[in-house]
Amino acid sequence: MNEDIKEILEKVKAGSMSVDEAFLSLKVQPFEDIGYAKVDLHRKVRQGVAEVIYAAGKKPEQILGIVETMLANGQDQILITRLSTEAADMVNAKVSLSYYEDARIGLVGKMTKPYGIGKIVIAAGGTSDISVAEEAAITAEVLGNEVVRVYDVGVAGIHRLFAHKDELMSAAVIIAVAGMEGALASVIGGMADCPVIAVPTSVGYGASFNGLSALLSMLNSCASGVSVVNIDNGFGAGYMANMINHMGVKA
Amino acid sequence: MNEDIKEILEKVKAGSMSVDEAFLSLKVQPFEDIGYAKVDLHRKVRQGVAEVIYAAGKKPEQILGIVETMLANGQDQILITRLSTEAADMVNAKVSLSYYEDARIGLVGKMTKPYGIGKIVIAAGGTSDISVAEEAAITAEVLGNEVVRVYDVGVAGIHRLFAHKDELMSAAVIIAVAGMEGALASVIGGMADCPVIAVPTSVGYGASFNGLSALLSMLNSCASGVSVVNIDNGFGAGYMANMINHMGVKA
Amino acid sequence: MNEDIKEILEKVKAGSMSVDEAFLSLKVQPFEDIGYAKVDLHRKVRQGVAEVIYAAGKKPEQILGIVETMLANGQDQILITRLSTEAADMVNAKVSLSYYEDARIGLVGKMTKPYGIGKIVIAAGGTSDISVAEEAAITAEVLGNEVVRVYDVGVAGIHRLFAHKDELMSAAVIIAVAGMEGALASVIGGMADCPVIAVPTSVGYGASFNGLSALLSMLNSCASGVSVVNIDNGFGAGYMANMINHMGVKA
Amino acid sequence: MNEDIKEILEKVKAGSMSVDEAFLSLKVQPFEDIGYAKVDLHRKVRQGVAEVIYAAGKKPEQILGIVETMLANGQDQILITRLSTEAADMVNAKVSLSYYEDARIGLVGKMTKPYGIGKIVIAAGGTSDISVAEEAAITAEVLGNEVVRVYDVGVAGIHRLFAHKDELMSAAVIIAVAGMEGALASVIGGMADCPVIAVPTSVGYGASFNGLSALLSMLNSCASGVSVVNIDNGFGAGYMANMINHMGVKA
Amino acid sequence: MNEDIKEILEKVKAGSMSVDEAFLSLKVQPFEDIGYAKVDLHRKVRQGVAEVIYAAGKKPEQILGIVETMLANGQDQILITRLSTEAADMVNAKVSLSYYEDARIGLVGKMTKPYGIGKIVIAAGGTSDISVAEEAAITAEVLGNEVVRVYDVGVAGIHRLFAHKDELMSAAVIIAVAGMEGALASVIGGMADCPVIAVPTSVGYGASFNGLSALLSMLNSCASGVSVVNIDNGFGAGYMANMINHMGVKA
Amino acid sequence: MNEDIKEILEKVKAGSMSVDEAFLSLKVQPFEDIGYAKVDLHRKVRQGVAEVIYAAGKKPEQILGIVETMLANGQDQILITRLSTEAADMVNAKVSLSYYEDARIGLVGKMTKPYGIGKIVIAAGGTSDISVAEEAAITAEVLGNEVVRVYDVGVAGIHRLFAHKDELMSAAVIIAVAGMEGALASVIGGMADCPVIAVPTSVGYGASFNGLSALLSMLNSCASGVSVVNIDNGFGAGYMANMINHMGVKA
Amino acid sequence: MNEDIKEILEKVKAGSMSVDEAFLSLKVQPFEDIGYAKVDLHRKVRQGVAEVIYAAGKKPEQILGIVETMLANGQDQILITRLSTEAADMVNAKVSLSYYEDARIGLVGKMTKPYGIGKIVIAAGGTSDISVAEEAAITAEVLGNEVVRVYDVGVAGIHRLFAHKDELMSAAVIIAVAGMEGALASVIGGMADCPVIAVPTSVGYGASFNGLSALLSMLNSCASGVSVVNIDNGFGAGYMANMINHMGVKA
Amino acid sequence: MNEDIKEILEKVKAGSMSVDEAFLSLKVQPFEDIGYAKVDLHRKVRQGVAEVIYAAGKKPEQILGIVETMLANGQDQILITRLSTEAADMVNAKVSLSYYEDARIGLVGKMTKPYGIGKIVIAAGGTSDISVAEEAAITAEVLGNEVVRVYDVGVAGIHRLFAHKDELMSAAVIIAVAGMEGALASVIGGMADCPVIAVPTSVGYGASFNGLSALLSMLNSCASGVSVVNIDNGFGAGYMANMINHMGVKA
Repeated sequence: MNEDIKEILEKVKAGSMSVDEAFLSLKVQPFEDIGYAKVDLHRKVRQGVAEVIYAAGKKPEQILGIVETMLANGQDQILITRLSTEAADMVNAKVSLSYYEDARIGLVGKMTKPYGIGKIVIAAGGTSDISVAEEAAITAEVLGNEVVRVYDVGVAGIHRLFAHKDELMSAAVIIAVAGMEGALASVIGGMADCPVIAVPTSVGYGASFNGLSALLSMLNSCASGVSVVNIDNGFGAGYMANMINHMGVKA
Repeated sequence: MNEDIKEILEKVKAGSMSVDEAFLSLKVQPFEDIGYAKVDLHRKVRQGVAEVIYAAGKKPEQILGIVETMLANGQDQILITRLSTEAADMVNAKVSLSYYEDARIGLVGKMTKPYGIGKIVIAAGGTSDISVAEEAAITAEVLGNEVVRVYDVGVAGIHRLFAHKDELMSAAVIIAVAGMEGALASVIGGMADCPVIAVPTSVGYGASFNGLSALLSMLNSCASGVSVVNIDNGFGAGYMANMINHMGVKA
Repeated sequence: MNEDIKEILEKVKAGSMSVDEAFLSLKVQPFEDIGYAKVDLHRKVRQGVAEVIYAAGKKPEQILGIVETMLANGQDQILITRLSTEAADMVNAKVSLSYYEDARIGLVGKMTKPYGIGKIVIAAGGTSDISVAEEAAITAEVLGNEVVRVYDVGVAGIHRLFAHKDELMSAAVIIAVAGMEGALASVIGGMADCPVIAVPTSVGYGASFNGLSALLSMLNSCASGVSVVNIDNGFGAGYMANMINHMGVKA
Repeated sequence: MNEDIKEILEKVKAGSMSVDEAFLSLKVQPFEDIGYAKVDLHRKVRQGVAEVIYAAGKKPEQILGIVETMLANGQDQILITRLSTEAADMVNAKVSLSYYEDARIGLVGKMTKPYGIGKIVIAAGGTSDISVAEEAAITAEVLGNEVVRVYDVGVAGIHRLFAHKDELMSAAVIIAVAGMEGALASVIGGMADCPVIAVPTSVGYGASFNGLSALLSMLNSCASGVSVVNIDNGFGAGYMANMINHMGVKA
Repeated sequence: MNEDIKEILEKVKAGSMSVDEAFLSLKVQPFEDIGYAKVDLHRKVRQGVAEVIYAAGKKPEQILGIVETMLANGQDQILITRLSTEAADMVNAKVSLSYYEDARIGLVGKMTKPYGIGKIVIAAGGTSDISVAEEAAITAEVLGNEVVRVYDVGVAGIHRLFAHKDELMSAAVIIAVAGMEGALASVIGGMADCPVIAVPTSVGYGASFNGLSALLSMLNSCASGVSVVNIDNGFGAGYMANMINHMGVKA
Repeated sequence: MNEDIKEILEKVKAGSMSVDEAFLSLKVQPFEDIGYAKVDLHRKVRQGVAEVIYAAGKKPEQILGIVETMLANGQDQILITRLSTEAADMVNAKVSLSYYEDARIGLVGKMTKPYGIGKIVIAAGGTSDISVAEEAAITAEVLGNEVVRVYDVGVAGIHRLFAHKDELMSAAVIIAVAGMEGALASVIGGMADCPVIAVPTSVGYGASFNGLSALLSMLNSCASGVSVVNIDNGFGAGYMANMINHMGVKA
Repeated sequence: MNEDIKEILEKVKAGSMSVDEAFLSLKVQPFEDIGYAKVDLHRKVRQGVAEVIYAAGKKPEQILGIVETMLANGQDQILITRLSTEAADMVNAKVSLSYYEDARIGLVGKMTKPYGIGKIVIAAGGTSDISVAEEAAITAEVLGNEVVRVYDVGVAGIHRLFAHKDELMSAAVIIAVAGMEGALASVIGGMADCPVIAVPTSVGYGASFNGLSALLSMLNSCASGVSVVNIDNGFGAGYMANMINHMGVKA
Repeated sequence: MNEDIKEILEKVKAGSMSVDEAFLSLKVQPFEDIGYAKVDLHRKVRQGVAEVIYAAGKKPEQILGIVETMLANGQDQILITRLSTEAADMVNAKVSLSYYEDARIGLVGKMTKPYGIGKIVIAAGGTSDISVAEEAAITAEVLGNEVVRVYDVGVAGIHRLFAHKDELMSAAVIIAVAGMEGALASVIGGMADCPVIAVPTSVGYGASFNGLSALLSMLNSCASGVSVVNIDNGFGAGYMANMINHMGVKA
């Protein structure tokens, strides 16, 4: 496989392929089959970031196998989400790993130095939403963004949220994390003039129906400039915010 | 039937029945059968207000029949909800009726003079929620309450809501009417220190699912002092607010 | 922060600020940030009662931390809901705490002496609904209300409920707690002439779908004067009932 | 086809087939194919009643065709449900038909003379449930039962229901028809000591979700001796009640 | 309380109250309050059978307390449903109890000798539905019915069901128990000419959604004479079938 | 575009491309853009049948436009589903069209002569399911299959279904169309030893929820060899059955 | 109100207020009350674009009233969504309006000249999704973006989508509009390295349940960089894409 | 029972019954009752394959009992699905058993030698879907099919799927296994010209709602030739694919 890449690059060097062609060609390319997973080795090129491993439901040795294949192929930044403390310890025994417990994220390699249009503000409604908020925060930091955390600012005590008005108004992107009635996204969406990514969480009881209430609420936000990711999907929000914050900007 | 009432009252007069006994006895009493409906003639005693007719699904002549039976039995205030303009005209031809078009309410008799602990504030999220809000407002006014209307104050432009902070904070009861994401109830519940009755409306599109989104949102309000009535049930909210505003107070 | 309050009070003393202005100003005020939670120190002023801690999903040491911050700021009544026996024991080792096991409630400080318009009656459908009913009952008692418990009065044996007719009819507020078909709220709503707060519970099996059946049933109550809180939300019902029972009345 | 029946009967006459064998054999027998429907000609034998035509979605001429085929084969009692006034008129032009407008039922032939264990009481919650209640009532009457109608007895005015206590307690079977919160079935189930057939109706608004609320409520009835048929299925309830009332009794 | 009963009986004896009046009066009568439950002591009179204890969610000592109160008041047949083996052992240590493990039912006292119109046939779709089917079967047997069990006759192998055609056709009542697609009720409803009580079970996987699929299927049965009880509610079906089988018949 | 095809074919002729390569290459090829639709001109090659136009929501002139583009490109068999009588007439004015009213299908060109492994049997539960069944039947016939129709064989009168046992058992593929409880698929799946395609229909009322009940029922079929298509998707079933019946067989 | 603005601006002029302070202050400011709507006059400052009027459920004269108030206050670009042809004609009679019929959008004023990071590509699954796609497209164009339309590229004919690979890969933002199974968002999300805004549409039949199927599908997209707006909310997607495309760029 | 079979066969031998009659007659025949299950001994004849035991919810000794009854009656190939490792070990102690751990399948007897029209390709979206995919694969292999596994080819990295284009295009049947958004079935359905059986899996989180999202997605596939089995029902898909691949072909 590495042959393919070399071949392409040599063609470029030789002038028989333009840089643009080479770039497009690399985008639609290869992966390595290690039995239980097809490891995608060019995602960094194709989507601008390193491979991400979703650890839930994978055994520690499988995670380790994927990490090692990636390292062997020259990946130098690997993000592992939904990683339990136990699995992190097992991987760490073989491969150096930074572990962020609240976010349940492991990182092989270093965080990218922050760059981009501005700051990503992450607002969370309650103490119980913090785990999802941290997944978003660490994801955005690893990918090279400055992150501002504004936690415990639920709409039922809206003066707490307003104490952070300036941070919200000067953000490049805002991630609004909330369970229960999920109103945070609408209120923030109406205050700010930047894109807002809403993350419903499964926090709540009774008629919250595991995040359904917050999800519907956020989809129905009457504020413009709000879009929604899956319930508890902190990673997805962090990733999307990173993309937006890096629009037209080189690291 | 009037015999029963007389009998009770004469017993009271004669001293063979205490006032309290008579009152309790009247509470569990009669109704008149006019074929298509059992008209409840003592509800004014039992629940403190006149009979209410839910006009949806009833023919104009049925509505008229119920009204006339009530008048013949001495009812002097009859509230008719979900009354179409056409049906109002037909009833009005026979019986004098005030009609409130936005609220789809007809009133036979006069509004009760306002009294109670304080004012009932009715806050509505958007232009399209006004019909439900008016149903609540007219209901409360008919039953003897001063009503303050605060419309078009959805959470996506929360500064509009804050312009009414003083009204909200000095209310005796607040009715929060909202469709779409229904966040208004939570925000108001967190600002005010009086009971909030939330009314989800079926306004919205896509994933609002005819009011389900707003309903769940309101039930999950993380603010204390918020309770909820059925989707679009403006009457129920106005009635409940009236009850609360008249706590321990005589007309 | 205490500076702000002093400043306001001194302005009042000096006559440069009216009492009313001062009160309104304090209502929209501060909180203290202890890392994992923004402790709201003026809620007693703003909403008339002490801070409430929702213990579910918080670690005992976090609960303790919040309690201690509050005590240090002069809070003298702290209600802790959804508190497990284990967490209660751990908090109690440091701070004196009354624990109500059936209600899963802890109380730091004393119950407020009962006052208000009348009694709060709490009716529960079955033995299994008692935990939720007790959460409502203790909440109301802590906040200063006389509570009458009427348990095991499901509608399938409606003569049991009728044996308590006088209590229901003389109540200031009624809380109706029921799972399964949730009909209790409708029947009580039709009998009583005071506000009824309905609490659906997740008790039941098969098609009760974790409280959904009771919730829909209560929302559709054809009786007037009934409003609904979230499934199993005994605290919310007790709090709402307390607000209503204290309408226009000073402690 | 009639040959088959004759053959069987002659075998019985000749003694080569026992009466029991003949009866069982007839139970599993024929139907006539008229293109758009297989008309079941022996249902009277098999299930004890005449054929029933569900008219919704069938054209008047199709209904007429089925009726004529049945008459030609000796059926003398045909029940047609969900029959519109228009279709009834068209059928009536060719075949003599009694039409019950409230119930949307047409009857070819005569009502069976009432017999059975006792009376079937049909209780309905509100004016708007009457159409479904009448479908049940006429069905039961056609099949030979004495029916007692107790309408407009919703649980929110439970004293109305109690005025009919004696009728309910002396019933052989009760059909409880209710929309909205559907609590009627539970209350009646707890009062009576006979089988109760509950029919949820699609009457209601907001969170009644076209009968879902009443359906769940009735399924979760905590009273014993209650079973449920489909939403708005008055015919099904009347048929079931008829079966029960005729247990062990000959016409 | 026993005083009330004596009083009534003496009135009857003295001729100042008719037997009928006395019976009706007893029907609407008393219960004993033992703190955690209001024990209904006259249900045998009111509904014709002994008290039933739903053991799920009750502690063994609570169950024992209820049983002892009942015995002290002269109840001689007590049915305990959803009784675990452990709880059964604990109760049995104090009070003699027959325990039916498959049905999770305990019986204090003796089974009633079978009587009634005919046999109750209980048909179950699969091996996994047997627990619910047995709950129905033992309930019916305890209350005095002859029961015929026809298990493992799912519609996917419909010839198995047909091998029992004669039993189905000669039944007085049939209980059809099925999970998954729940088609058993429809097929049996079309074959038999007696009332069919359908019990959906939560057996199944994937899109069976804990019995919802079977429940909807049974409610939509196109056969007449089918009514439905709650998911997994074997007791409810057995009780209903008992009522029907005893129509017009004395034990 | 036609150039591409010629080029390929000439390469094949010239021997520079194998037939297999040519075939695969054609499979992944072109379409023509006519503004409101990209007409897929090689579907006949790629999927073995002509283009199918789903007419619902398209204007008659758009349908005509697509048909004419196809004809101009040499398509000689075009199937148009969900075609109203009005639209059929308008298309027919310009292009010769056979119209099957019950099935709402239009056909440009001729039916393919039947071939394949055996017959496709289409079983439908009730009169109201016939439209969906006919959509399946005509689709299969157009594509070249012998179809046997077995209608009005719902499971509530299962002897009607058994009268067709031999047809069911000798089928190559069976399509089972049913609304309401959808049990037909399970019963047939248990009787037959060929693949069964189940089509839930939206026929039914009350708790059938527009086909959801039948859909869940069919997905939960405990018979093996049953798979399901979308609600009312008669075309999909006919197409799938055609594919199966033509397995390994040339027209 | 204009006084406030002047006051602020004069303070700035006088140097007593910095430009930044003034800007923040204006952001949290005024609106004008015209009875049926509070017209938000500073949204252009607060969120960077002109006011948007959601015309559904508003009468033509109300729309006109809002437009005129805005024009009188100096708004020079007003976007009106969900505007019917009839309402557009009525508004146009008084105020010059460009009307985009497919998109159901009216524009008072001129389109902003395109600027931003790159192009917005709008991909739509089927002919029937075009109305929603156009709402997104016109919204983005009005707000100043170059838009590329790629329609009729559903995943069932994925080679059609691939013919547009270069456009998708060079986009700044992609909007993926799809009904039915909604897979388009996932496929595009995996191909592109820019943010993807997914819009589920209510197109489809049977088990698409008015867009629910597509909505769930899009939320569950396993591709990173995909977020979702409400069903059929083309405006929301166009607005969000506009925000992202203008990140860090001045018009 | 074996007598019946002998009798039939002797009739055939004697010429008094044709082979065809005998075959049809055997198809509708017997089973053996072993108490907890009616073992179906002729399914091999009736449906062309051996009995399948669904082990979930059955005790190891019950499984063993069924296996032994089958062996005693001459069954030589028994497939056991959802078999845990523990149960497999217990059965294996008595009866020789091959166990496929990933697929949770046990096999008594030998795999059938592959035959049929072509290969069955099984495509799976993610690592976590492999268990369901393997259930399908082993089922198909046991029943005599050549299986090609194409795993980890989710649509978010669609170039991985395209690397297998040739396998997909030359398959006789394809099984598409996917959770989350379930788009795999549509994409494959559009590429291939053979029947596609789609299996939604319960893999996913948040709004995947245990497979509901994938299920709806697959049902709404806009590609023709796709049908769906129950969530996680790998066996059902493998069985259906086997049926199709053996159309018109003898082993």
